[in-house]
Amino acid sequence: MLQPSGVITITTDFGHKGPFAAVMKGVILSRFAEANIIDLAHDIPPQWPPEAGFWVSRSYQYFPSGTVHVAIVDPGVGTERDILLVEHDGHYFLAPDNGLLARLLDFSDAPVAYHLENSSFAKLGIENPSATFHGRDIFAPIAAEIAAGRISLAEIGRPTENWIPAWTDEPEVTPKKVSGIVVTVDAFGNLISNIDAPLISGFTQPTAHIGGHDIRTHSTYGRVKPGEYLALINSFDVLEIARAEGSAAEGLGVDRGAPISVTDG
Amino acid sequence: MLQPSGVITITTDFGHKGPFAAVMKGVILSRFAEANIIDLAHDIPPQWPPEAGFWVSRSYQYFPSGTVHVAIVDPGVGTERDILLVEHDGHYFLAPDNGLLARLLDFSDAPVAYHLENSSFAKLGIENPSATFHGRDIFAPIAAEIAAGRISLAEIGRPTENWIPAWTDEPEVTPKKVSGIVVTVDAFGNLISNIDAPLISGFTQPTAHIGGHDIRTHSTYGRVKPGEYLALINSFDVLEIARAEGSAAEGLGVDRGAPISVTDG
Amino acid sequence: MLQPSGVITITTDFGHKGPFAAVMKGVILSRFAEANIIDLAHDIPPQWPPEAGFWVSRSYQYFPSGTVHVAIVDPGVGTERDILLVEHDGHYFLAPDNGLLARLLDFSDAPVAYHLENSSFAKLGIENPSATFHGRDIFAPIAAEIAAGRISLAEIGRPTENWIPAWTDEPEVTPKKVSGIVVTVDAFGNLISNIDAPLISGFTQPTAHIGGHDIRTHSTYGRVKPGEYLALINSFDVLEIARAEGSAAEGLGVDRGAPISVTDG
Repeated sequence: MLQPSGVITITTDFGHKGPFAAVMKGVILSRFAEANIIDLAHDIPPQWPPEAGFWVSRSYQYFPSGTVHVAIVDPGVGTERDILLVEHDGHYFLAPDNGLLARLLDFSDAPVAYHLENSSFAKLGIENPSATFHGRDIFAPIAAEIAAGRISLAEIGRPTENWIPAWTDEPEVTPKKVSGIVVTVDAFGNLISNIDAPLISGFTQPTAHIGGHDIRTHSTYGRVKPGEYLALINSFDVLEIARAEGSAAEGLGVDRGAPISVTDG
Repeated sequence: MLQPSGVITITTDFGHKGPFAAVMKGVILSRFAEANIIDLAHDIPPQWPPEAGFWVSRSYQYFPSGTVHVAIVDPGVGTERDILLVEHDGHYFLAPDNGLLARLLDFSDAPVAYHLENSSFAKLGIENPSATFHGRDIFAPIAAEIAAGRISLAEIGRPTENWIPAWTDEPEVTPKKVSGIVVTVDAFGNLISNIDAPLISGFTQPTAHIGGHDIRTHSTYGRVKPGEYLALINSFDVLEIARAEGSAAEGLGVDRGAPISVTDG
Repeated sequence: MLQPSGVITITTDFGHKGPFAAVMKGVILSRFAEANIIDLAHDIPPQWPPEAGFWVSRSYQYFPSGTVHVAIVDPGVGTERDILLVEHDGHYFLAPDNGLLARLLDFSDAPVAYHLENSSFAKLGIENPSATFHGRDIFAPIAAEIAAGRISLAEIGRPTENWIPAWTDEPEVTPKKVSGIVVTVDAFGNLISNIDAPLISGFTQPTAHIGGHDIRTHSTYGRVKPGEYLALINSFDVLEIARAEGSAAEGLGVDRGAPISVTDG
């Protein structure tokens, strides 16, 4: 039986403008004063669930077991879309059922997934949720109750094995080549791909191809001269393109969504 | 008698640059280690108190009763401007007396307002506050002492019924038309107005007018096709203009301060 | 013997993109659930340690004694660069040995500095740290253990009196003139210099010179008319150039790194 840690992470596309994440925290603290709330990321591109799913699925394991991860990227808020409640690998995940959690669920050995029952609102003390801000009016109350250990997912959801599929394709893998995309660009201009390290672990000398450039792999940024490009397996275990003391995104003129491939040799 | 919750929210125009909000938190924790400090918003336009007042007055009710809300947008810092200390609706509010809290006070049934007595500095243990950062040197110490339940507003302020008025007009209301302004634009490009839902609740078919466009009301974003505009009563109970899967601000070419009106039909 | 306060501050050049600071917090909470983690600043220019050092050395004293200050601006991550562990003035400081802490150490009366021993990893329970994210894999675990009071710097480091020097020069001081640089620009466009107040405290009428302008000193922003420039000793006790109700950086067309001098008269 999963024990909540009292920690709640929040991932959104709200940016760093206005009180939107703050009022979610206010609602959580009003129900569970001991909650320890951590902003995971708020710069997800507006209404683009895949990046939220990427970061949540790559980050959750650094938090204490029993943490509740809430991800609100929700273009369908107020329509008939479902809400997913998931237990996976000792953590809780709450998100709209819009593909955000699909990759996490698809690769999970034994995910336990529920769709929120609207009939649970009374049990949760949720009255008149707004049509446009379920993060505050539905997800925050559920996160607080779960984190406080006062309610289980099974009590408020119906088990499901169906969810909206992921919006982006998994990398295409052949014996000599793996092809994926740039999922996100960090503040340094590093290009972070969806190509997992194990997909290219058999390559003797992996070379990345992006924006018309062929780029060799190294272990860390300081291994090449300033201005040079390098490919590396980054700290989240995916292929990344960087430029020593510079921005690979600017230098190569590529951005999120760009195709990237790796060959051997 | 109002019981503090231990929660303190901070709203500023400091942006997300530098350690300015952080040192306020350091000062609070140095006095009250158990304080639970939440960033409400730091992206208020520089030295524009009305937006801070708008968000504080729209957000406080989502926090636990007894929360201390500190708002620092303070173009007159270090001059003779007063500091307002307010109890309203079960919450505490601290801000420069520059119009920031005027709307909250004007619409309050029974506000309890004080001007900070400079003679209280000794009582508060405040020595040599800087002339330019009262957020750190005056507001943070007061917030900590109030949140810790060690001092009351009455002990450090003199009662007042006079405060600097709001910088922006309230909406103009006629039987067939309500006229206001865009108060702020969120990260999605949604245009958030100062027109409260009750002002147009009698309209059969409210239509918004902004930037030369006539825009129909709907319940939520997913109710129109991608690219279409809609007006809606948002989750903070004011009129908002949005564009499905896009930015209304960019599409309409309007920004904060733009006039907006609503007619019936 | 320094007692930890349980507070940890984090300063980085990660910007406000992605989950990089968040996973550091997750690692800290996984080891020390009671940690009180405060973001000091995340907008340090990429891979520019001096600004991180400036803000940490100007801000730490506002936090409770025994706070752990972690600063991650780390262009040499994964190469042979050392990690510095410092006790100074009742606080702990952890950073790459790349000049970031040099000014703090150079001006400290009795700094106690260590280089992290790689042989301490077992003692700290650190296994297979990544080559590219020591903030998460090395600094966060150490910060948690120190803040929890479970380990001392002496147990994991070897004493040192050698560290990489600062990247920027200290101000040049003559009897009639002090010359320095703009270290950072805040969200208001105020130009913050490295010229400490004591360096010009003997001047009768200090006048600042920057971008071809001569600017008089005043006590606070509200002392000049809107649009006028002023020099002042700011709340961090350094010389700052501001523009009343405007941005000095925009108005003067100068930015970080610009030379600035002060003369008497």
